[in-house]
Amino acid sequence: MGEFDLIARHFTRPVRRAVLGVGDDCALLAPTPGMQLAVSSDMLVQGRHFFADVDPEALGHKALAVNLSDLAACGARPLAFTLALALPEADDAWLAALARGLFALADAHSCELVGGDTTRGPLNLCITVFGEVPAGQALLRSGARPGDDVYVSGTLGDARLALEALQGHLTLPAEVLQAARQRLERPTPRVALGQALRGLATSAIDVSDGLLGDLAHVLDRSGVGAVVEIERAIELIAARAYLKSTSSHFDAEVWQRAALAGGDDYELLFTAPAAERQAVQAVAAAVGTPVARIGHIEAVPGLRLVDAAGQTVPHRWRSFDHFGAAG
Amino acid sequence: MGEFDLIARHFTRPVRRAVLGVGDDCALLAPTPGMQLAVSSDMLVQGRHFFADVDPEALGHKALAVNLSDLAACGARPLAFTLALALPEADDAWLAALARGLFALADAHSCELVGGDTTRGPLNLCITVFGEVPAGQALLRSGARPGDDVYVSGTLGDARLALEALQGHLTLPAEVLQAARQRLERPTPRVALGQALRGLATSAIDVSDGLLGDLAHVLDRSGVGAVVEIERAIELIAARAYLKSTSSHFDAEVWQRAALAGGDDYELLFTAPAAERQAVQAVAAAVGTPVARIGHIEAVPGLRLVDAAGQTVPHRWRSFDHFGAAG
Repeated sequence: MGEFDLIARHFTRPVRRAVLGVGDDCALLAPTPGMQLAVSSDMLVQGRHFFADVDPEALGHKALAVNLSDLAACGARPLAFTLALALPEADDAWLAALARGLFALADAHSCELVGGDTTRGPLNLCITVFGEVPAGQALLRSGARPGDDVYVSGTLGDARLALEALQGHLTLPAEVLQAARQRLERPTPRVALGQALRGLATSAIDVSDGLLGDLAHVLDRSGVGAVVEIERAIELIAARAYLKSTSSHFDAEVWQRAALAGGDDYELLFTAPAAERQAVQAVAAAVGTPVARIGHIEAVPGLRLVDAAGQTVPHRWRSFDHFGAAG
Repeated sequence: MGEFDLIARHFTRPVRRAVLGVGDDCALLAPTPGMQLAVSSDMLVQGRHFFADVDPEALGHKALAVNLSDLAACGARPLAFTLALALPEADDAWLAALARGLFALADAHSCELVGGDTTRGPLNLCITVFGEVPAGQALLRSGARPGDDVYVSGTLGDARLALEALQGHLTLPAEVLQAARQRLERPTPRVALGQALRGLATSAIDVSDGLLGDLAHVLDRSGVGAVVEIERAIELIAARAYLKSTSSHFDAEVWQRAALAGGDDYELLFTAPAAERQAVQAVAAAVGTPVARIGHIEAVPGLRLVDAAGQTVPHRWRSFDHFGAAG
């Protein structure tokens, strides 16, 4: 048995829901009658999505979290995933920690590892995740309608603040950095919220590349425009609440960049009819994930930012481009 | 629109069979009632699975072919796939050629690209493929029984000979190298044969790491042993037939290494009851893929190689280990 097989052992566990798991040419899943299969793939590359010295347990968590976040954005229930892994070397302790982080999150969502691949190469993790959703009920990017409210779950921008602090571009108090870093390294996929929004939200996407860039995808696919109230988005930065009580201050630009173009939030950005405000807050409360209204959909194409007085504010924020610069 | 989005355009086409393809958080597939979903992931890394100067069209073909081969080994019908791609730079012509190779094979098997991811990083292709198979009819590695025949489809060892020639370890006549190189760079997944063998083969695997190594997986999972006739395996090297009529000769070791431990063949290695010999040949003829008997399954564990006289031959061949040396 080679090193290769020993590595695979960290990632081979008996399956409970799948028909067949790791160890044959294919895994076999038995879809539930009447359900559609939701599928998403994300690849994480060192230097682009994580630092070389990343805690492997956090990396295992994040690699699966970003994929579960895509299922959440479709309102799908997680079922299973495959993991393909390129490794420069086989470090047993590092792999054990990676597996720990991965399986802790997988178990929390009853999402089974059913197959994969391991090879030598520059560090790269590619996860494909499978979920199921009742036929015709998936949340899509294309359903936003004029008059709908625009909501975002949880908090925004803290992952970006942590990234900028870790890169030395700004300074955060230690306890604020620690909390923000958790958001960067251990994002929480909003899986229960996504399922709870089925039949209520008219569109949804997860905030991976930045609020405005991701909202632009919804607007494109839905053929509509939106107005976003800047202050409402900035209020969702958790670090801002902490820092208000200290002497630390940032330029408005720092806050705006974090909340509007930060990326790596893995919150749900969704739209729902204005008539459903109570219902939206009720399901959010039921699953324990706060949601906030930050704007509304209009028929006129384009994305307008407004200040607290409703005045249009010029902006230059764009989403994270993997082949360009951030922000 | 960034470079990132332009790249994605090479890989975005309307879907015909899936409910939803590229462009949302998830793709949506509608499984056929009564069918199980077969899933497999393979990651291809530069320097390990292909050379830096590989023809991108051939690379596109091979990246999907190795995944379709896994579906074939399960007897599954291809449905869809996702592609995650890490690229050091965005070269439009290179990507267009990659897409051409990928889609030519995908179209030949009615297998749709439904989602994926593109990021900057060391060149890496990760494909996850989906197929379907009637519940309970998937070909597994675990079903080989004493008395079964051992078969392999098509040809063996030519990919390995091409690799050794390209590395300068041996010399092949130009026309022989050209044919062998096709086997290395454009392998043929035995998709129709895999489906035709449902209900007939007792076990199956695809030959990716080398005949003996892959057969060992079947023996392990089935709890049996096997006898393989060396000469029958070597006879399946296409280049050998060509070279017989020329003055070129290799040591027996070269032929054995190629046929028994070569890898990258993507042929089907399968077992079937001796009573089904005619039926096996009939379905193989029906799909136009030759299959040859190379040995049989025994109750005694282990893998024995025998010469034409039935005498046991000592061997040291093992399968390709991605963290060790080949052969």
